[in-house]
Amino acid sequence: MEAKRGSPLLLLLPLVSMTIIFFIHGCSAMGEEKMLVGHGRRKPCKTIVFYLHDLLYDETNIKNFTSVIVATPSWDVKNKLSLKFFGFGEMVVFNDPLTVGRSLGSRELGRAEGFYFYDNKKIFSLWFGMTLTLNTTKYNGTISLAGANHLMEKTRDMPVIGGTGDFFMTRGIATIITDEVQNSNYFRIRVDVKLYECY
Amino acid sequence: MEAKRGSPLLLLLPLVSMTIIFFIHGCSAMGEEKMLVGHGRRKPCKTIVFYLHDLLYDETNIKNFTSVIVATPSWDVKNKLSLKFFGFGEMVVFNDPLTVGRSLGSRELGRAEGFYFYDNKKIFSLWFGMTLTLNTTKYNGTISLAGANHLMEKTRDMPVIGGTGDFFMTRGIATIITDEVQNSNYFRIRVDVKLYECY
Amino acid sequence: MEAKRGSPLLLLLPLVSMTIIFFIHGCSAMGEEKMLVGHGRRKPCKTIVFYLHDLLYDETNIKNFTSVIVATPSWDVKNKLSLKFFGFGEMVVFNDPLTVGRSLGSRELGRAEGFYFYDNKKIFSLWFGMTLTLNTTKYNGTISLAGANHLMEKTRDMPVIGGTGDFFMTRGIATIITDEVQNSNYFRIRVDVKLYECY
Repeated sequence: MEAKRGSPLLLLLPLVSMTIIFFIHGCSAMGEEKMLVGHGRRKPCKTIVFYLHDLLYDETNIKNFTSVIVATPSWDVKNKLSLKFFGFGEMVVFNDPLTVGRSLGSRELGRAEGFYFYDNKKIFSLWFGMTLTLNTTKYNGTISLAGANHLMEKTRDMPVIGGTGDFFMTRGIATIITDEVQNSNYFRIRVDVKLYECY
Repeated sequence: MEAKRGSPLLLLLPLVSMTIIFFIHGCSAMGEEKMLVGHGRRKPCKTIVFYLHDLLYDETNIKNFTSVIVATPSWDVKNKLSLKFFGFGEMVVFNDPLTVGRSLGSRELGRAEGFYFYDNKKIFSLWFGMTLTLNTTKYNGTISLAGANHLMEKTRDMPVIGGTGDFFMTRGIATIITDEVQNSNYFRIRVDVKLYECY
Repeated sequence: MEAKRGSPLLLLLPLVSMTIIFFIHGCSAMGEEKMLVGHGRRKPCKTIVFYLHDLLYDETNIKNFTSVIVATPSWDVKNKLSLKFFGFGEMVVFNDPLTVGRSLGSRELGRAEGFYFYDNKKIFSLWFGMTLTLNTTKYNGTISLAGANHLMEKTRDMPVIGGTGDFFMTRGIATIITDEVQNSNYFRIRVDVKLYECY
């Protein structure tokens, strides 16, 4: 980046001001107003890691299921995930626990609620709309996400599109790894939420 | 916020430049370009308040319903809201009028269109994806929202994730209060849309 | 825009600093960090144009359909688009090809996956949640959109709410024009994605 103007003042000031702007953009709370942190950089201003557990209703687990099929194409029924066209068109509503560790018994950080559906005829692939509600000593607020979750890729990103409470107006990326799949009714994913706009 | 560098120039300039940056970020239209207003602050650049009326189809109100159940778990039917698991998995498509006052007969500001579904087995709780279309003398454009609506909380926030027209690229929060519920097929909410990014 | 403080230094600096800030905000890549481009202006930092082809399942096209009805009100069936209330409440899951030209045989840029539903009792109107996945020599990443698609308007905008990969954290607008409709099971739209925040 080079100054393109002739004034000696302008030749000097960009370097100084750039430092200041980065300084300001990089700072945390100032008085009562929270400042924008990390905007325009690849370094997150907040990172939250957890495991999400999804247990699909299959007529035998009425006590502890956390998700259920609510819509399907005409060729399917709602009682179990179809293998036809890799579940294309099957839509699930969920309310899943988020835990610190892999074990469902580890400390719960909050819940993920929303819906997903299978949307590829040739491979397993999902589209999610969901909200993470965190209620811990550190955080109190919600984070909304919307986007594709291409299951066949080892690691995939999904956009964070907004938030409330401690996550007021936040934006960023959630990086998702499938941690375990059991039969066709349990999966656990590891989610690294990386926020790049914090207020 | 403290300066962390030793140069006297840098010790002076942060305060000066900070003032300037806030001044610029806080200003309104300049020339033909609209400027970003209110970014990074808790004071909205636009506030819009209205009441949303949702009248669910129940087989008797074919003339004037504004929403209808379109998906359910296998244990439910679509003719009325189920009480099993607090409606978990029931999905509704809506196109609801937005009015200035509580009365459905008061001036209409626009429509809210989208979908919501019940997503908690233990309490009534919703997830919304919706667009507000405003068509008034003051505003012409749409506002998109996506997120949880935790009905059991007296006041709850939902993220504003984008917009078009007069709400080009907007972001913010909608604060929602349940204003009235009648039977299981009418509800009215008060919505305070607070936009913190205006272009 | 006028300076409101008395200090001669402050009277001078706004103009200088404003230039610098615009300079910085308007510049492209600097070192390894990508900078925010075009923020707060009406000129896109990236524009991508393509045609989206949607071929709805109708029981005769099992080989090549790209979308399928998955949810309907109780008065409808999923085998074909209903004309009752202009399809109100019918929800479709899709995975549609995106091509450079009008012809389905022209070069494919990527896919659009997501869902849409009809949400107006009096005219044809849709609400979309979708992700564009681009995989070309130029771009590799996803773009998420959510909002209304008012089909009866010749040109309409839909908000871009986030992205991943080359579209990390992007925002903007997609302008949509219906290019062709055949029977009730094929439509082609032209989409101009205009991004105003690029990192």
